[in-house]
Amino acid sequence: MVTVGKKGTVLPRIYDDAPAVRGVEKRVLIGPKQGAPRFVMRHFTLAPRGYSPEHAHPWEHELYILSGKGRVRFSDGAAEVGAGDFVFVPPLDRHQFLNTGDEPFEFLCVVPLTGDDG
Amino acid sequence: MVTVGKKGTVLPRIYDDAPAVRGVEKRVLIGPKQGAPRFVMRHFTLAPRGYSPEHAHPWEHELYILSGKGRVRFSDGAAEVGAGDFVFVPPLDRHQFLNTGDEPFEFLCVVPLTGDDG
Repeated sequence: MVTVGKKGTVLPRIYDDAPAVRGVEKRVLIGPKQGAPRFVMRHFTLAPRGYSPEHAHPWEHELYILSGKGRVRFSDGAAEVGAGDFVFVPPLDRHQFLNTGDEPFEFLCVVPLTGDDG
Repeated sequence: MVTVGKKGTVLPRIYDDAPAVRGVEKRVLIGPKQGAPRFVMRHFTLAPRGYSPEHAHPWEHELYILSGKGRVRFSDGAAEVGAGDFVFVPPLDRHQFLNTGDEPFEFLCVVPLTGDDG
C-alpha cells in the first residue's frame, strides 16, 4: 500500500560523538519499516559547525541538498554546496559533510539497505 | 570519484503526451552516467494542472516533495502533499501524481536502475 509521510512526524536519531561526528540528526523517512525492498531515504540535519564522520564504506551515497550551506570533503578535494545541488559518492570513496553556514544544513541521503544502521 | 552537480545544470526531458501525461519535466540528477550502481535520483517538475500517468509497475518509488502542492492518487484513495512530505509507492501499486496548486509541483523520485527510462 502507498504510504504518505508528513513533514515533522519522524523522530530523529542524534549523532553527537565528537570528535568523530558533531550535531547530526538523522531521520529515516522511507526504509524497511515502510516495506522498502532495496534502498533507504534518510533526511539529515547538521547544526551550524556540525559534521558527519570522515569515512569510506562499500556502498554509495546519493545526496540532494535541501537547505543551508555545506562543504563536501573527499579524497582529492572539496566542494561547497547549497539548496538544489546534488552529490554522488561512489562505493569506497572517502567523504565528509560539514555545515559551513549559520543555518541548519539539510539534505537527503539515499543508500542501499545495507548502508543504513536503522 | 565524488561527483557534485549544481542546481539548474541538468536539462529536462519533457513528457506532455496528454491525456496520459501532461506538463511533466524530468531531470536525472544521479544515475548510470554518474556511475550509480543500483538506484537513480530523478527530479520532477509538474506544471500547474500537470500530472503523471496513472500506472503500476514492478519497481518501487521513493518520493520527497520539494515545493508546491500536489495530490497522490492510489488504488484505494488519495492524499494531499506539500514540501517536506514523502511517499513510498511499493512495487505493483497503482499511482498517479497531480499538481493541484498554482505553482510548480516539484519532487524527487528515486527508483532502481530498471525503473528509469533515461
